[in-house]
Order: sequence, then C-alpha cells, then structure tokens
Amino acid sequence: MEHREPGYVADKAQLLKRLRRAEGQVRGLQRMVEDDVYCIDVLTQVSAATKALETVALQLLDDHLAHCVAEASAEGGPVAEEKLREASAAIARLVRS
Amino acid sequence: MEHREPGYVADKAQLLKRLRRAEGQVRGLQRMVEDDVYCIDVLTQVSAATKALETVALQLLDDHLAHCVAEASAEGGPVAEEKLREASAAIARLVRS
Amino acid sequence: MEHREPGYVADKAQLLKRLRRAEGQVRGLQRMVEDDVYCIDVLTQVSAATKALETVALQLLDDHLAHCVAEASAEGGPVAEEKLREASAAIARLVRS
Amino acid sequence: MEHREPGYVADKAQLLKRLRRAEGQVRGLQRMVEDDVYCIDVLTQVSAATKALETVALQLLDDHLAHCVAEASAEGGPVAEEKLREASAAIARLVRS
Repeated sequence: MEHREPGYVADKAQLLKRLRRAEGQVRGLQRMVEDDVYCIDVLTQVSAATKALETVALQLLDDHLAHCVAEASAEGGPVAEEKLREASAAIARLVRS
Repeated sequence: MEHREPGYVADKAQLLKRLRRAEGQVRGLQRMVEDDVYCIDVLTQVSAATKALETVALQLLDDHLAHCVAEASAEGGPVAEEKLREASAAIARLVRS
Repeated sequence: MEHREPGYVADKAQLLKRLRRAEGQVRGLQRMVEDDVYCIDVLTQVSAATKALETVALQLLDDHLAHCVAEASAEGGPVAEEKLREASAAIARLVRS
Repeated sequence: MEHREPGYVADKAQLLKRLRRAEGQVRGLQRMVEDDVYCIDVLTQVSAATKALETVALQLLDDHLAHCVAEASAEGGPVAEEKLREASAAIARLVRS
C-alpha cells in the first residue's frame, strides 16, 4: 500500500513541541531523583509528564481518525475495515495504559 | 521538619535507569514524527512510554509507603496523618492521569 | 437530523449481557461492604467491575467508529466533522476516566 | 490472623450510598442500550459510572492506608510488610485498570 502522509502532518510542529517539553520533564525527573527530592514531589511531576504524553496521544488519534480513517471510510472495503480495526486497538491500548 | 532521605533512596539506580530509558523513548517519538511514521506506530510507542512512566510512579509510591508512611505511622500523630493524606492525593492523581 | 439506528445495534445482546454482569458485580460489592469484607478484597472487585465497564465502553466506541463515523465520513462535510469531534471527545473522556 | 474491622468501617454508609448510585447508573445504561440511545450519550454515561467506581476505590484505599497499613506499620515486622505489599498491588491494579 503506497504510504501516504500521516494524518498528523498539519500538527507536526505542535506535536514536536509537546514531545520536546515531555522530554525535558523526564530529564527534570532524573535531576529530582539524583537530588533526593521528596517522593511526593517527584510523583507529582511523573503525573504531569504522563498527562503530557496522553495529550500527544489524543492529538495523534484525533488526526488519525480525521484523516486516515475518514479517507479510508470514504473508499470503503477492506482498507477501511483495517484502519478501523487498528484505530480501535490503539484506543484500547491508550485506555488501558 | 528536618528533611530525611527519600523513601526511594535504595532504588535510585533503578529509577534513574528507567527514567533514562523513558527519556530515550520520548526522543525516539520525536524522530518518528519528524520522519512521518504512520500514526498508529507512533501511538503504540506513546503507550509504551506512558507505561514506563507508570512503572516509575508505582515504584516511587511503593517506596514512599514502605518508608516515609510506615515510619510516620510508627510515630503516629499529625505527621502520620499528613503523610497519609499526601500519599492518598498522589494515588488519586495517578489513578486519574 | 433524523436519528438512525445506533452503531451498536448488532451487539446489543452482548452489551446488555455485559452490563447486567457489571450490575451484579456492583451489587456484590455492596454485600461485601455490608459484611465487612477485608478492604483489599473489595478493592480487587472494584477493579474487576471497572474493567467490565471499560470493555463495554471500548465495544461501544468500536461500533460507533465502524458505523456512525464511517458512514458520516463517506458522506463527508460538516456531519462527518461533527461525528469525528464527538468521537475524539468521547475517547479523551475514556482515557482520562 | 484474627480478622479486625475493615479500615472503611467509619465510611460504610457513604460507600454503600455511592455503590447503590453506581448500580443505578449501570441499570440506567441498560435502559439506554435497550432504547437505542445514541452511542456517544451511552459512552458519556459509562465514563460517569467508571468515575463513580474510581471514587469508591480511592475511598477504600484511603481508609486502608489510614487504618490497616498505619496500624500494621506501628507494629512493624512481617505483618506490616505484607500489608504494604498488598496495598501496593491494589494501587497498581487501580492505576492500570
């Protein structure tokens, strides 16, 4: 199947910005642990970094539904079914992670 | 209140190793987005990075309960109540993130 | 907008069966609490009931994507955009609950 | 080990009230599905019921930490270790459900 541009292409800059920030948060967590920062304060930051990654995931999913799944649905047939199956599996992983 | 060693001090090396790996995963996500990798594959990696952070959070919480909360409970009184209140709030944030 | 059959119509029997089981689990939780059952055992059952509801939610979402969203995407235009917006908001609620 | 009153004994009335409400929500979900209510509206109610169960779980955990774990920690030794191990496993199930 010829690989098309990903659904998130229009949001790349924003996704990269969020991922860089999440990377900085995870690096910041390492410094907190190295500096023996109190457990609860480190935990608060872990929740913040997890939320940042969740926001990235929801953005990716929105774009995937709005482009890849929508385009495939317009075509119909097995391609559409596969896209829907993939999207459902990705949503289940997200809900259960 | 004189700051004691954090509860996770015995697990520092393992926590730092996990955090470095999570940092690498988030950096890897940036490369995937830059390279227009298919949405679902990026999403799968985001779930993996989220799970890695969850594992760090659960380790921190275990250590906090086993040391900070347990020690404070042995002393009893307002210090113990505050530690329990903090732990409960941290658990709620984790469950809802 | 004329209301069509819901996307889950083909899975109604299974959904109702799961929901009846979840109802039974929640009733069972009440008996456990009335009988002073040990906290951890009650907590284990709460996680089981939560998981049962999550399975219902994922089934509903699959059906919604495969029918309502797919059909609207085939039509395109504002109806499709609204369906996608709704689906994304529902997914975000699920991921964050 | 002689079974003591559960940690949640002081909150039994509130827990039972919340569980009865959650039971009502799950019964309400069955009516919605029987009446072919739109998928997204059913999904919104499933998230509400899931959140209600999460609130019950967090209350149970608070009480367990504040009583069972705190009392055991005051005694110390293997009983305390077992209580902490149990609490950590219950938290992990909650975070991952």
